[in-house]
Amino acid sequence: MKKINIGVLGATGAVGQTFLGILEERNTPVGEAGDGEESFKGLDLVLFCANDNVSRELAPLAARSGALVIDKSNAWRMTPEVPLVVPEVNPEDARLHDGIIAGPNCSTTQLVVALWPIHRVNPITRIIVDSYQAVSGTGAAAVQELRDQTHQWAEDADVTRSVYPHQIVMNVLPEIGSFGDNGYCSEEMKLVNETRKIMHAPDIALSATTVRVPVEVGHSEAVHVELSRPMSPGEVREVLSEAPGVCVVDDPARSMYPFPLQGAGRDEVFVGRIRADMSHPQGIAMWVVSDNLRKGAALNAIQVAELLMAEGLL
Amino acid sequence: MKKINIGVLGATGAVGQTFLGILEERNTPVGEAGDGEESFKGLDLVLFCANDNVSRELAPLAARSGALVIDKSNAWRMTPEVPLVVPEVNPEDARLHDGIIAGPNCSTTQLVVALWPIHRVNPITRIIVDSYQAVSGTGAAAVQELRDQTHQWAEDADVTRSVYPHQIVMNVLPEIGSFGDNGYCSEEMKLVNETRKIMHAPDIALSATTVRVPVEVGHSEAVHVELSRPMSPGEVREVLSEAPGVCVVDDPARSMYPFPLQGAGRDEVFVGRIRADMSHPQGIAMWVVSDNLRKGAALNAIQVAELLMAEGLL
Repeated sequence: MKKINIGVLGATGAVGQTFLGILEERNTPVGEAGDGEESFKGLDLVLFCANDNVSRELAPLAARSGALVIDKSNAWRMTPEVPLVVPEVNPEDARLHDGIIAGPNCSTTQLVVALWPIHRVNPITRIIVDSYQAVSGTGAAAVQELRDQTHQWAEDADVTRSVYPHQIVMNVLPEIGSFGDNGYCSEEMKLVNETRKIMHAPDIALSATTVRVPVEVGHSEAVHVELSRPMSPGEVREVLSEAPGVCVVDDPARSMYPFPLQGAGRDEVFVGRIRADMSHPQGIAMWVVSDNLRKGAALNAIQVAELLMAEGLL
Repeated sequence: MKKINIGVLGATGAVGQTFLGILEERNTPVGEAGDGEESFKGLDLVLFCANDNVSRELAPLAARSGALVIDKSNAWRMTPEVPLVVPEVNPEDARLHDGIIAGPNCSTTQLVVALWPIHRVNPITRIIVDSYQAVSGTGAAAVQELRDQTHQWAEDADVTRSVYPHQIVMNVLPEIGSFGDNGYCSEEMKLVNETRKIMHAPDIALSATTVRVPVEVGHSEAVHVELSRPMSPGEVREVLSEAPGVCVVDDPARSMYPFPLQGAGRDEVFVGRIRADMSHPQGIAMWVVSDNLRKGAALNAIQVAELLMAEGLL
């Protein structure tokens, strides 16, 4: 495999730091990227982990200078010409890029990695997902806010806040992103739209409630799906046990199931609590946990790059 | 209204303490109750907030000595001859008691208070509920464990545990109660069975994932219902705005929705995030929060007693 020059834009953020860590683990030589067109010269790949505005402005410049952009922001995900790729689900879409490939939102990534192996053998017609999302999904300032509030709570001091609209320690908040006229917040709509695009399933019915919880790293999701045909929990477990990127942890009687502290720092998407959804004859319920900074962001982007390198396309 | 003698069995627990607080707020004279048949003599009402075994053994003794037992434990809830009562939903069932009336599990109470007003005008055919439950639902020792772990985390000390199978601070755990062969935990099955009994809706389809979160007081529930006929979120909001025991808090664009820190210490069941469930033509999604120690336990029992007193039946 030839050596490529990689730049990371937005390297100081929470996801950026995880990017650098994973690149180091994988012994990948890392270059530098700045904020102008000049600095993209000589780079084969630029991992964008900046905000939507920066990405909207600079990604086309990087692409025009000959680099492949793999973008973590929301800027390009739903642009029809830009592939939205999770290597375990739709690797073939990566080949269709025109200089920019988008990675999905963290809550979507772990959902599609867990559901795609099932969908392939028994098409999913409807998904209901309610999430328990870590503060690191908001960014480094939110992690600091949870830590500060935890210290304040422990010292019986006044709890201060600036990132979230309400206290997050000892609390949960059903608001992630901004609200639309339909009463859904943007994080919920990302789950709907990105899942449909990645799984090439525009007609799949999907509803979500996304909730911030006082956890540092690791998103959890309670998932209820309806399938085209009945399928036993055992069959689902078998399919998922052989699926790439998935780790089944499912012995609840021994308190073995995924949870954030167990999944943080790991690469896999963890699935447990697999059971018949007793409210529907073709229903399956499950519990999905993954490190939102790794598979939810940085790792997925690096896997997209590795996929293209393996095919000689990068 | 005549004066009655009230005993509280299990007064030292988390729910027991809340019982005593509410009785004091309402200026109700409180007696004492011990642990033998003798001590129930002279009491008109005994509020049981002990565990299942104690309740199974002592409630019949108290009833035989002439007291009405209102029981918070799981011991009698599903016994066909014992009414399971939430005053806002099925007050008429309270009259049918034979000495024992049961109150539901905390997660059920807030669910049925929020759903019954809708079900009355547009029968609910299916419910999916995923919960975010406070540690006080487990008891006073669990509250202490969360507090201790929070202090340990803040001091960068080793986190110790004895109540929960895994660390609860900075974590969430999809396990409440014990697991059955069907993969559901007992808390989830309580939601299913108790909701059907209270709402006199044995055929309602229901599935739940119950999850413990690092919150002291206040259970939250992401709820998705399917109705018999289409119904707009505005109509649901109107119905709930006039419903007894319900408080609608629903202006998400201004970050106004229910959350545990807001609902704790309050008597109402708070409902917000009311929206069309975009995955179903007759679906409604919502977010329900209530103080699990008050309406979820002590307050409900006291309201049952007040209901019978108002009718001269106690």
